[in-house]
Amino acid sequence: MGKALAVSPLAPASFPDLPVIDGVRFSTIAAGVRYQGRTDVMLALLDPGTAVAGAFTRSATRSAPVLDCQEKISGDGAGSGAAILVNSGNSNAFTGKGGVEAVRAIADATAQATGVPQARVFTSSTGVIGEPLPFDRITAKLDALAGTLDAGGISEAAKAIMTTDTFPKGAAAEVSIDGKTVRIAGIAKGSGMIAPDMATMLVYIFTDAKIARSDLQALVSASNETTFNCITVDSDTSTSDTLLVAATGASGVEVTGHDGFADGLHGVMIDLAHQVVRDGEGATKFVEITVTGARTDRDAKTHALSVANSPLVKTAIAGEDANWGRVVMAVGKSGAEADRDLLSIRFGDVLVAEKGWVSPGYSEADAAAHMKGQNLRIAVDIGLGCGAATVWTCDLTHGYIDINADYRS
Amino acid sequence: MGKALAVSPLAPASFPDLPVIDGVRFSTIAAGVRYQGRTDVMLALLDPGTAVAGAFTRSATRSAPVLDCQEKISGDGAGSGAAILVNSGNSNAFTGKGGVEAVRAIADATAQATGVPQARVFTSSTGVIGEPLPFDRITAKLDALAGTLDAGGISEAAKAIMTTDTFPKGAAAEVSIDGKTVRIAGIAKGSGMIAPDMATMLVYIFTDAKIARSDLQALVSASNETTFNCITVDSDTSTSDTLLVAATGASGVEVTGHDGFADGLHGVMIDLAHQVVRDGEGATKFVEITVTGARTDRDAKTHALSVANSPLVKTAIAGEDANWGRVVMAVGKSGAEADRDLLSIRFGDVLVAEKGWVSPGYSEADAAAHMKGQNLRIAVDIGLGCGAATVWTCDLTHGYIDINADYRS
Repeated sequence: MGKALAVSPLAPASFPDLPVIDGVRFSTIAAGVRYQGRTDVMLALLDPGTAVAGAFTRSATRSAPVLDCQEKISGDGAGSGAAILVNSGNSNAFTGKGGVEAVRAIADATAQATGVPQARVFTSSTGVIGEPLPFDRITAKLDALAGTLDAGGISEAAKAIMTTDTFPKGAAAEVSIDGKTVRIAGIAKGSGMIAPDMATMLVYIFTDAKIARSDLQALVSASNETTFNCITVDSDTSTSDTLLVAATGASGVEVTGHDGFADGLHGVMIDLAHQVVRDGEGATKFVEITVTGARTDRDAKTHALSVANSPLVKTAIAGEDANWGRVVMAVGKSGAEADRDLLSIRFGDVLVAEKGWVSPGYSEADAAAHMKGQNLRIAVDIGLGCGAATVWTCDLTHGYIDINADYRS
Repeated sequence: MGKALAVSPLAPASFPDLPVIDGVRFSTIAAGVRYQGRTDVMLALLDPGTAVAGAFTRSATRSAPVLDCQEKISGDGAGSGAAILVNSGNSNAFTGKGGVEAVRAIADATAQATGVPQARVFTSSTGVIGEPLPFDRITAKLDALAGTLDAGGISEAAKAIMTTDTFPKGAAAEVSIDGKTVRIAGIAKGSGMIAPDMATMLVYIFTDAKIARSDLQALVSASNETTFNCITVDSDTSTSDTLLVAATGASGVEVTGHDGFADGLHGVMIDLAHQVVRDGEGATKFVEITVTGARTDRDAKTHALSVANSPLVKTAIAGEDANWGRVVMAVGKSGAEADRDLLSIRFGDVLVAEKGWVSPGYSEADAAAHMKGQNLRIAVDIGLGCGAATVWTCDLTHGYIDINADYRS
């Protein structure tokens, strides 16, 4: 795992106090998949009646566990409950036929230990790419995992799934619907897209809401577009990214997409997404990039991601340089429509450029003052239409090079 | 301009001995646009009968001089000759209406000093973005420039157009056609796409071949796709990139696209393109990435550029790590078709992975030995079809962060 990394300066002050979600229990164990002296496998067991929805990496070289989850996710088996089994240390990606067999072995063992059918066992693996997953170390621990399930174990689960993360990530929401309370709690891991060979983004969210699987999937897919699909650390996409949302129904409160539940779920997703950026490798600045006035929302997101992924913009931010010229460059290269002479750019509240040139009232000192903060905002108005999008990223620093130019250990 | 940069370790041993091209003369001068104590303006004057073709940045926020060149390039005015006027230190990009007026003033002054019609004056500006170009410093020098033209001045021209370049760039070819010799000589500047606020790629190539403008344009456009459009330092695209090729016809040798001239021109273009990568900001490794077996050539280029632009691949190369997992990741995220279980990857001559997994005979030591070199090759076979592409890039190092996270000075 290489040297231990210092906790990100952008980390939250502490791990949040996550509520117990009725209908789900957790256990973790040290199976020695790759790491020593820490937990590296977590099991979440979901009661019968649980609906599970998900979203996955679009990579054409997806890992075996992702492909297995995608096959299972739309199945109707809520009556049987479900299990989520995650290991860190080895991603079981680019492992050929052996990788498929490893997934099957783990899912079979999980089914046997928990009584959940194999078709309802969802697995994820995160860690080094291209090495055979020593799945027997995991299957050997499944009885122990099944025997130590605990409704209060979610914070331990957040730790077991970490790889190069410098802090565990959790978020929660309570939503009141018709005078009753629905609870949502989620955990995530991720710090670079797949770096250094052992990162990826994994997200597990649990709620006691009662919701049809198709409604839950629609909510998850929609919220994913404006949360996890709007963050970028280094523009690289993991072969293993997985988001699973499980609704146990234990609260007895029926929800749809048209009540407060959607906002609560979105809030948990955006909170976790921001925490992943805040743990970005080498990050010292958290940056919100908003594009308005594009021809379409899709164009706005294209522009915003072009700015967020530009190495020149990201290094300027690291240098606390209000370098709006690089923002112009990134908008220009994005491929989406733009007109140089209609662009306006703000750093924080400072209007830097308008109508294609430096704003008459622009003060470099004001913009420089904003850039010295830890939480930055860059806003670009394209001046063509009503399309808008917001994305989040971090700066590109020597820390990123240090972490990623090291030899694998 | 900030501190002086050390010459790139990847630089050629010396500037090549460029041949005189009949029909073109050069002059340079120190106009003090931004830099002190060096030349920063160059004039190339082309005799009547010269055909001019070009290629330009696709940025939606193109600079005023680029837009002016694009308007003029397809005009038929070979009978009047042509002039190319380039300044470094200020890119006249994102400078609003004032930028357009600056281009006109420079073109008018060049026309007056040289006798070439304004419609045949092509200008480029490279340097800081978003500051008004002090064009009067340039126009004041035009009579002096016109009075010191020299057929042997091309190497001085290569120096005058430099910004953050650590070495001047030149390349030449001689082609024998029907027993007669055609000469080609070119110069270029560029080191990052627009960094640090003062880079961009400018290329000027001169030949004494006699060729119709439309034929020359077709050759230039085609060769551009496999040369300058196949290099990447940091994935960022300048608002000012300009390639101009001028054929004076002075050799009297008529050429078409179907003789040795096409190869000669391509050779000069690829040589200059490689030199730009070799001067990539912070570069310590020159990397050739070849993709074969894609469904189409276009898919192959998409995969190859995804690998070349991946920060994780580029930092691994900086760390001399034969990290094929990151290559898999970059192929997977590219958006072009791929099948994980058909991929083969080579580092140099070492077969690292095949059919979706580590090659049985793979020796990490052999791959690591290749990675220690200065000139690296990564080859990916997609296993789906016959599409192929080659692109060139450099590694991502602390040097890049140093150069680009500095304050503008």
